[in-house]
Amino acid sequence: MSDTQAAYDDLLDRVGRIANVSHAEELLSWDQQVMMPDAGTPARSRQLSALSAVEHDLLTADELGDLLDELEGADLDDDQSAVVREVRREQERAVRVPTDLVERISAASSEALTAWREAKEADDFDAFAPHLEELIELKRRYAEHIDPDRDPYEVLFEEYEPCLPLAHAEDVLTDLRDAVVPLVDDIRASEADLATDAFAGTFAADRQEALMREALDLLGYPWERGRLDEAPHPFSTGTTFDARITTRYDEKEPIGALLSTIHEFGHATYTLGLPDDAYGTPLGEARDLSIHESQSRLWENHVGRSRAFWELFLPRVAETFPAVEDVSVHEAYEAVNAVDPSNLIRVEADELTYHLHIVLRFEIERDLIRGDLAVDEVPAVWNDRMASYLGVRPETDTEGCLQDIHWSHGAFGYFPTYSLGSVVAAQLFDAAEADIEGLEGQVREGEFDTLHEWLTDNIHHHGKRYETNDLVRRATGEDVSADAFVDYATAKYGDLYGL
Amino acid sequence: MSDTQAAYDDLLDRVGRIANVSHAEELLSWDQQVMMPDAGTPARSRQLSALSAVEHDLLTADELGDLLDELEGADLDDDQSAVVREVRREQERAVRVPTDLVERISAASSEALTAWREAKEADDFDAFAPHLEELIELKRRYAEHIDPDRDPYEVLFEEYEPCLPLAHAEDVLTDLRDAVVPLVDDIRASEADLATDAFAGTFAADRQEALMREALDLLGYPWERGRLDEAPHPFSTGTTFDARITTRYDEKEPIGALLSTIHEFGHATYTLGLPDDAYGTPLGEARDLSIHESQSRLWENHVGRSRAFWELFLPRVAETFPAVEDVSVHEAYEAVNAVDPSNLIRVEADELTYHLHIVLRFEIERDLIRGDLAVDEVPAVWNDRMASYLGVRPETDTEGCLQDIHWSHGAFGYFPTYSLGSVVAAQLFDAAEADIEGLEGQVREGEFDTLHEWLTDNIHHHGKRYETNDLVRRATGEDVSADAFVDYATAKYGDLYGL
Repeated sequence: MSDTQAAYDDLLDRVGRIANVSHAEELLSWDQQVMMPDAGTPARSRQLSALSAVEHDLLTADELGDLLDELEGADLDDDQSAVVREVRREQERAVRVPTDLVERISAASSEALTAWREAKEADDFDAFAPHLEELIELKRRYAEHIDPDRDPYEVLFEEYEPCLPLAHAEDVLTDLRDAVVPLVDDIRASEADLATDAFAGTFAADRQEALMREALDLLGYPWERGRLDEAPHPFSTGTTFDARITTRYDEKEPIGALLSTIHEFGHATYTLGLPDDAYGTPLGEARDLSIHESQSRLWENHVGRSRAFWELFLPRVAETFPAVEDVSVHEAYEAVNAVDPSNLIRVEADELTYHLHIVLRFEIERDLIRGDLAVDEVPAVWNDRMASYLGVRPETDTEGCLQDIHWSHGAFGYFPTYSLGSVVAAQLFDAAEADIEGLEGQVREGEFDTLHEWLTDNIHHHGKRYETNDLVRRATGEDVSADAFVDYATAKYGDLYGL
Repeated sequence: MSDTQAAYDDLLDRVGRIANVSHAEELLSWDQQVMMPDAGTPARSRQLSALSAVEHDLLTADELGDLLDELEGADLDDDQSAVVREVRREQERAVRVPTDLVERISAASSEALTAWREAKEADDFDAFAPHLEELIELKRRYAEHIDPDRDPYEVLFEEYEPCLPLAHAEDVLTDLRDAVVPLVDDIRASEADLATDAFAGTFAADRQEALMREALDLLGYPWERGRLDEAPHPFSTGTTFDARITTRYDEKEPIGALLSTIHEFGHATYTLGLPDDAYGTPLGEARDLSIHESQSRLWENHVGRSRAFWELFLPRVAETFPAVEDVSVHEAYEAVNAVDPSNLIRVEADELTYHLHIVLRFEIERDLIRGDLAVDEVPAVWNDRMASYLGVRPETDTEGCLQDIHWSHGAFGYFPTYSLGSVVAAQLFDAAEADIEGLEGQVREGEFDTLHEWLTDNIHHHGKRYETNDLVRRATGEDVSADAFVDYATAKYGDLYGL
């Protein structure tokens, strides 16, 4: 065996151990949110921080750095080079940030989280402001340790989307804003009256759950590699061997659980489509948040909100809930696609206005981190921009800049990945439609194998082999762009609202 | 802060991390047995071995050894000395055994497990024999690395019961055998006809589960710190903040689930009674298997099989299962206490003959490890001893020496802890009865707080502060001994069988 091969094997051993510790953390976190009894928190927190410390020690070990140095100068094949590139990216960030800063951020987040909950409850932004201020300062220092010469927001953005340049992402978000704002204006001005009350009534949670299981069966969720449970905030987690979904039920709002379950199913299909034999290496791990979100949005929006899907699924809803027997496919389609610009809350927003919620957060957090906006200006800027983008002004900060948990976690740079995921979903669905003859008919018949196969071959199966834009270009022939989404939205909402 | 205090704090940090990694492993294992989808095994095995390797590395780190050296020579208080003693014990074993031997044992066990399953299925001891041979050889070498000058079985026994000398344990097991064999003879000869069919019928699993929850409520299981689930082999696991129980249901045999749930509840109460503030240190961990088993057996046998408990619980069984409405307390008491020497299977054995199953296994494994018995002699020795101790001879090895999984795991020295737990349970229950006025009446009334308190104060709360015999002596005034169990059994079965 050559020295290079020996070094590469050693690298894979080390990386495998890190990946396995990280997957163990994910399982502990799943359990905490889904199964753990209430009093378990003190032990669980310590178990999680022990694993996280172990992971950090393994990632920053000198031996790992030496192996990377050696392999970066060696003659590697493309897959090996991709592995080395991905490990180096993570290792470099871990090595550069001092442990005590990581601990300070963790402690500050923990306090900020409590302060945020109270501030949101009391509609008291001033009570949260000092915590936000401290987190911004700490995260700026964090970014400076990683690279003192670059825009700190760009550095932070790379925590969530490490391989799509921020400038590219900004262009996409700007294009999106410039197209969606006038479209929402037109919708607000239209006199179309959509069947928004098609699913009014009360829908028992246990029957909703049965319906979710039926939907997942239909979409092709492999139960031998997964499970469905309830959690306060739906998420999915796991490995290619075991990718789990969670959801929640609102007895007044059955469509919420359905679309959220399909969304999490989309995330799970990505995890399940990663190659089994690359488990524990970067080639067996998902390509970060934007691409992950593209999979969930593709299934949620392009399948779950399509007319073809409702032709398939409405009869099953009616079988479970006879109250909706008289709802037509067209009414169901309208109900799941209605746009409501007056909704102030991101997590309840429709598919279209959602992007304006994201663009607003992106612009504010970017300016905060760059020092172009002061913390005490946030409420006013937030409200002004809501008025300008959505034509509606929050009356409280609870329904405004205090609504999301992200900043209290110190997560600056996360929000953009939601919209990036959506635009990539539209690009991928276009490409899949071009490649798969009769895709819409297949959805109507409940045949999803070809679509799964297309997504696996073009996206899932590559793991982290390609960087984000490369991966999208190989799958679609285009760079990441807002165009496909804008075309799709213009046609869909034009049709729905008679524009 | 003194140097000693700094070193001690550093020790606690390191030990805390090891404990947390170990608790994470336990959670992964719970999930694997209770929640994990079938296909999850490849990833889970790798996660578990990564955590186990991390734990081993942390335990064998030079820095930990240096701290122990320093602290062993320092002026420590009693609790600190106990902590150092316990950490050293584990560290020493970990350091002395080479990693490649641990890996070879793990690989050999994995193969032996498959071979054992097939051999048991096919009643073919010869197919399992070479695997058993290899494991004995490897475990002998394992023991030799730990201490080449001592009896290897003694060294292996200490994996499961590290602080009760084997000679002491052997005396207890011999006393037990010498008292139980004639008692079983007398029972076999008696003409008493116990109500063994009191619970004949079919008992739906979901209603059994509801009954289990009622039993656990009554016994005082704190649901905010636990949960009840199903597993193929009942077990309990967790921490003082989150101690979970599993059970299984046989629709033909409702008493099995009940006694097994109470047994696991006993284990869980021990875990729950460990001091919260010592979590992650040896003073917050249970004192090994014999004492753990004493807690499960105390609740299972001295509470769950008592007449007082059935006065309390039978009406509730009858409410859930009207088919048992006509069963009297005395009949129920007889049914849960009947002795059946003809039962060849340990896990189905009654409270009394169980010990003879254990003594037989203990004698055989001890002789195998010491080289006093050859593997090919095992079936004959097993069957002869069954005939001599229980008056019954297995017709197949499937019902004989192939019935248990333990040896295929390389677990030699584990079996004795089951019987040691039972005898300690009898000692503890005697002492509790002496200390608590009207304990029997409390059981009859469903008041278990005083008993919980007594067990917490005398056993649980100490963690690993005292070694096994010390702990029992402090609680009962006696050394670990078979006497209390023999007296209890003589009285109970004398009464039941008119001896």
